[in-house]
Amino acid sequence: MFAALADPSRRGIVERLSRGPASVSELARPLAMSLPAVLQHLQVLETSGLVRSAKTGRVRTCRLDPVALGSAEQWIADRRAGLAASLDRLGTYLAEHPEEEERT
Amino acid sequence: MFAALADPSRRGIVERLSRGPASVSELARPLAMSLPAVLQHLQVLETSGLVRSAKTGRVRTCRLDPVALGSAEQWIADRRAGLAASLDRLGTYLAEHPEEEERT
Repeated sequence: MFAALADPSRRGIVERLSRGPASVSELARPLAMSLPAVLQHLQVLETSGLVRSAKTGRVRTCRLDPVALGSAEQWIADRRAGLAASLDRLGTYLAEHPEEEERT
Repeated sequence: MFAALADPSRRGIVERLSRGPASVSELARPLAMSLPAVLQHLQVLETSGLVRSAKTGRVRTCRLDPVALGSAEQWIADRRAGLAASLDRLGTYLAEHPEEEERT
């Protein structure tokens, strides 16, 4: 998922889809690239699970998967929580050992 | 930042650093790769802003940057919030136009 989000065009597509579902041609319109290039980016986004699409007649409609987006967010949130806890432990340690703070 | 997080070894380093600062050799120990390979991953993480490092004597200590981590999380959170709002609008629309729901 992070690889899928690493490309600015794909982040643009995700941003557009966060405002609601869109057809492939709607997604392609603002992008300065060929339709095959857009389809390839969509393929990467679909493989990552971030985007789902369904075809009705000749129109393929794409939408974001909130669960996949949530799990990418959760991974980062967990690391941030771990970091906050480790900074808290350091703060507690320094409060209990003021002589260490002077040395650093 | 998402490109930096796209690699499993680099996510492993971020996970380790979320439990507190670590030296380069501590980071390298659990990884099945050469020290130059570890240094290259650290370089990518530092360039992305997610990791900072400082050298004291012969030891380089690495730590996560909570602000950078927070901004990656915020980007995804904003997209999720946008998506939730667009689903709310759809729900409101369908509630006001029950005949549309039957058609979909």
